[in-house]
Amino acid sequence: MSEVAFNKFKIIMYDFQFISKIVNKDKRAVARAITYVESEYKESESILKSSFSFTGNAYRIGITGPPGAGKSTLTNQLCKHIRRLGKTVGIIAVDPTSPFTGGALLGDRVRMAEVGNDEGVFIRSMATRGSLGGLSRKAVDVADILDAAGYDFILLETVGVGQSELDIAKAADTTIVVLVPESGDSVQAMKAGLMEIADIYLVNKSDRPGSDQAVSALKTILMMKNHDVNTWLPTILKSVAVENKGIKEIFDEVTRHHNYLLEKNYFRSRRERRYKSRIKKIVESKIIHELWKDENEILLDSSLEKVVTDKVSPYQIADEIIANFKQRLTD
Amino acid sequence: MSEVAFNKFKIIMYDFQFISKIVNKDKRAVARAITYVESEYKESESILKSSFSFTGNAYRIGITGPPGAGKSTLTNQLCKHIRRLGKTVGIIAVDPTSPFTGGALLGDRVRMAEVGNDEGVFIRSMATRGSLGGLSRKAVDVADILDAAGYDFILLETVGVGQSELDIAKAADTTIVVLVPESGDSVQAMKAGLMEIADIYLVNKSDRPGSDQAVSALKTILMMKNHDVNTWLPTILKSVAVENKGIKEIFDEVTRHHNYLLEKNYFRSRRERRYKSRIKKIVESKIIHELWKDENEILLDSSLEKVVTDKVSPYQIADEIIANFKQRLTD
Repeated sequence: MSEVAFNKFKIIMYDFQFISKIVNKDKRAVARAITYVESEYKESESILKSSFSFTGNAYRIGITGPPGAGKSTLTNQLCKHIRRLGKTVGIIAVDPTSPFTGGALLGDRVRMAEVGNDEGVFIRSMATRGSLGGLSRKAVDVADILDAAGYDFILLETVGVGQSELDIAKAADTTIVVLVPESGDSVQAMKAGLMEIADIYLVNKSDRPGSDQAVSALKTILMMKNHDVNTWLPTILKSVAVENKGIKEIFDEVTRHHNYLLEKNYFRSRRERRYKSRIKKIVESKIIHELWKDENEILLDSSLEKVVTDKVSPYQIADEIIANFKQRLTD
Repeated sequence: MSEVAFNKFKIIMYDFQFISKIVNKDKRAVARAITYVESEYKESESILKSSFSFTGNAYRIGITGPPGAGKSTLTNQLCKHIRRLGKTVGIIAVDPTSPFTGGALLGDRVRMAEVGNDEGVFIRSMATRGSLGGLSRKAVDVADILDAAGYDFILLETVGVGQSELDIAKAADTTIVVLVPESGDSVQAMKAGLMEIADIYLVNKSDRPGSDQAVSALKTILMMKNHDVNTWLPTILKSVAVENKGIKEIFDEVTRHHNYLLEKNYFRSRRERRYKSRIKKIVESKIIHELWKDENEILLDSSLEKVVTDKVSPYQIADEIIANFKQRLTD
């Protein structure tokens, strides 16, 4: 065997061993793979490609809602409940609003103390660290790694109510929207687009005053929407996550939703829809990456003078850059 | 002249008349051009291209901050102040968080009653109406229409604190971040990235308790940042917009900032940077539009089966779609 061939062989063996470790739930290998994905190392794509055939078995639960609704506590309690049923859990906690990991880190410590030492639980926090772009895509990639590693349930927890959270929540099989009894929360949720993605509404901290009114308000909002008899009617539940009240009921409802999707043959179409939007995003991000490398960035910089001084329209410059990009591809 | 040539001539004459009307501040023509841009009519691009040579004279002031900070009131008062100085004003009020125009419309009515009958004022509200994408790009296009129409000042007011608002605020020559005295607001502003874009901080409703502490908190945060002596040090002002207190001071500070930018030769580079990010967005949105038309969408749909059943990685499918797109361009 030549040296070149031997080196190639070594790389393939390394990849093979790495994927094997992930599939065998080696926590260190899983953590490393996730870091590759998060940091956009060049190895990440080949890892995602090779490990993809091991995915598809984990059930993904999205947990979202406004800050302070008790999502982390709920996630922890759900995790402990699932563990008691003998199943393993991967947790991905995403905070797209925070350029720091401050909040996520604090939540992490509480979490680690509660469930982190359990061999059947893997926890990862993700924050933006300066760049907003691509976080939702990366979170779904990380879910795939945990799926390939064989975790039975993946809890995707997102903080806040922006577009990234909606994207991440859409990547779940069942999505729980967590609210608190305080008035206005449900209206805010509606405005933020959360009503479109909820399979289960949870009024958490329901020992506080106003929880019945919050449930009624949600019911009214749900009734206002035209409800198709062929779609799932979102359920409204109450909980006090911090006292472990209502957790079993939530999990049972997730199971009922899962069975509903299977019975109606929606499970597969839902996942197909999910893959569709995901592939779109991958393609777009790759094309845009290619678009701005090399001379197009230079062409753009040298055109700014024309825009400011000669009042050439940005749309005109855009046309020129696109023509140049196409020319480059055909060369 | 053949019939075809005559029809072309009619179209050119129509375009010419339309642009003339815009440049002559014909409010109906301006409103129509804005509707074309907002609704993405095919005419919009040629209008933007032809009218661009008339832009560049308006001074653009961005007004942003959390909901309830009094941005609409401030915008109205600033507008009235600028009118008293004999200058004309275009107002663009953007609410990216609202899929409805509810909030914007209410604000509009108050606004119309106060300043809407003035010939020297043009007001336009923009909301998402179902689609989040492109709102910031459209808001800047609308600003260009108002600029071409010859309004001396354009006030870009955005509600909320998401990525779209940051994009719109970056499109201004001077950006005012409006906060209220209540504690925590400045910390939230920092987290949301508002600190990076503010040229002027305004503690509005400063007759409420805690306004001095809010100013101190802002000063502390500003001091924590490494301040380059060659950049503008953001100013902190107080106001009670509803009582017209502090409005003159704000406008004077905007003028001081404008002069600073001119003196230091930053005005031009700032606008160049702005056009750069704008052209990038136009190019990307056009390429992505082209990417998904015709057979690529079909190729994507037919590939979903392979992903779900054969566990072919989404990254693999993405590669195939990109190859197909490139092939199509070279044909």
